[in-house]
Amino acid sequence: MTPRHTTRFTVEFGDCDPAQIVFYPNFLKWIDSAARHFFAAAGVPPWSDLEAKTGIIGAPLVEVSARFVRPATYGDEIAVETWIDEWRATSFVMKHVVRRGEDVLVEGQEIRVFARRHADDSRRIVAVAPPDAVRRMFR
Amino acid sequence: MTPRHTTRFTVEFGDCDPAQIVFYPNFLKWIDSAARHFFAAAGVPPWSDLEAKTGIIGAPLVEVSARFVRPATYGDEIAVETWIDEWRATSFVMKHVVRRGEDVLVEGQEIRVFARRHADDSRRIVAVAPPDAVRRMFR
Amino acid sequence: MTPRHTTRFTVEFGDCDPAQIVFYPNFLKWIDSAARHFFAAAGVPPWSDLEAKTGIIGAPLVEVSARFVRPATYGDEIAVETWIDEWRATSFVMKHVVRRGEDVLVEGQEIRVFARRHADDSRRIVAVAPPDAVRRMFR
Amino acid sequence: MTPRHTTRFTVEFGDCDPAQIVFYPNFLKWIDSAARHFFAAAGVPPWSDLEAKTGIIGAPLVEVSARFVRPATYGDEIAVETWIDEWRATSFVMKHVVRRGEDVLVEGQEIRVFARRHADDSRRIVAVAPPDAVRRMFR
Repeated sequence: MTPRHTTRFTVEFGDCDPAQIVFYPNFLKWIDSAARHFFAAAGVPPWSDLEAKTGIIGAPLVEVSARFVRPATYGDEIAVETWIDEWRATSFVMKHVVRRGEDVLVEGQEIRVFARRHADDSRRIVAVAPPDAVRRMFR
Repeated sequence: MTPRHTTRFTVEFGDCDPAQIVFYPNFLKWIDSAARHFFAAAGVPPWSDLEAKTGIIGAPLVEVSARFVRPATYGDEIAVETWIDEWRATSFVMKHVVRRGEDVLVEGQEIRVFARRHADDSRRIVAVAPPDAVRRMFR
Repeated sequence: MTPRHTTRFTVEFGDCDPAQIVFYPNFLKWIDSAARHFFAAAGVPPWSDLEAKTGIIGAPLVEVSARFVRPATYGDEIAVETWIDEWRATSFVMKHVVRRGEDVLVEGQEIRVFARRHADDSRRIVAVAPPDAVRRMFR
Repeated sequence: MTPRHTTRFTVEFGDCDPAQIVFYPNFLKWIDSAARHFFAAAGVPPWSDLEAKTGIIGAPLVEVSARFVRPATYGDEIAVETWIDEWRATSFVMKHVVRRGEDVLVEGQEIRVFARRHADDSRRIVAVAPPDAVRRMFR
């Protein structure tokens, strides 16, 4: 069974737009942060350490989708529940549910890969199989 | 036939993350901006004017999805091509293709609704049918 | 004696730039949030409520300055200590010290005014004397 | 005589806060971008190239101050005029004036240093004298 991790955020004034509600890309910002906290909680080292040891620069996104159920505004306390829903050959699916109390605000899904820099062009990145050390953490 | 609109952006240093590439929620920020520029180019007034006239506060997002094909970094000039792919009863589907030159970087899709504030609770929003004036613009 | 308030934040990956350190405008974002939390902790209602009751839309910034002493990076836990250093006729001076543990990272100063919308042009804002209810909170 | 450079931006919906005006840290974001475009226009290579050649990772900020004269809102086209006002031993002073048409919106000042990573601790940075190649550009 896969572990779940919850990351908490406070919605700030500057996270909201002229419609008084969260500017939606900020939900993706929190989801991205939740993904990193999920890995940190599972014992995966910071990306910078991981790069030094394995060449892996992080787990960039391949696809994201999100369904926005309820808006949020500043002062709201929100919680993002995160888990890995599926391991694939070179990618994995993360699910994120953003809630305020019991209310679901956003349901998000990220498909990520572990990546290292391309040998010939450091500006390109290449997907690699998830490191065993990482996969073992989730067995 | 639906019109298309292209919005141009420059990727800035601060848009990029420690992996030296665009922090992905910023692509959604540009896509959101492109949606507004699409409407402005089509003659839809600023949301604040629209609210004064029609009660419509904007076109908040219901769902978003994006596929990240190539990364971008600071100094890159990018262009977002936007169109409405489908009108539904109370929602519509926008497509956005982000390119650097000929290269596709991101393919995005937004499902949006036109919304006004809830009569009894100004913090809630309610989907309304796209205003005729707006739909006429795209016929 | 003026009360002090401490607001805590976690530095996220997306808050950092390609130099691996916090992109400096994000320190101002945290300082702005700390200003609002300071007022909330002192019992000042959310800006939206305050506008309904008093016409005051918030406490926009007139001047900001910040000295950056040490960089921070993602994973760092930071704390912003905030107080009002001086009340003037229509403005006031807030001080903010950002620390990671004992280390000072940033020393910030904001000069803010309480403001309402201009009677003839809702896009302009006008400074007003701090509401008595607010000043009383800090006596 | 020191050259001046103007960088243009469009204020987007998501750059504005619930008070309908630009969330002030975004002005610093544009000012930071203007600083980089100033250097790029003067022929200074991207920070990543500069690091490869000289070890210099960029020109991080030591101090910033800004005076906010007029607010801006989405749809506004703004221009940031940037110049180096003073060279000091290991730092330099940049001035930035943000205008919408003729109107001054913000007057900003940044004190920056050229920096490389600390030899013993790559998380610390050390100020270095501005590279001659850079100073020559501005003579």
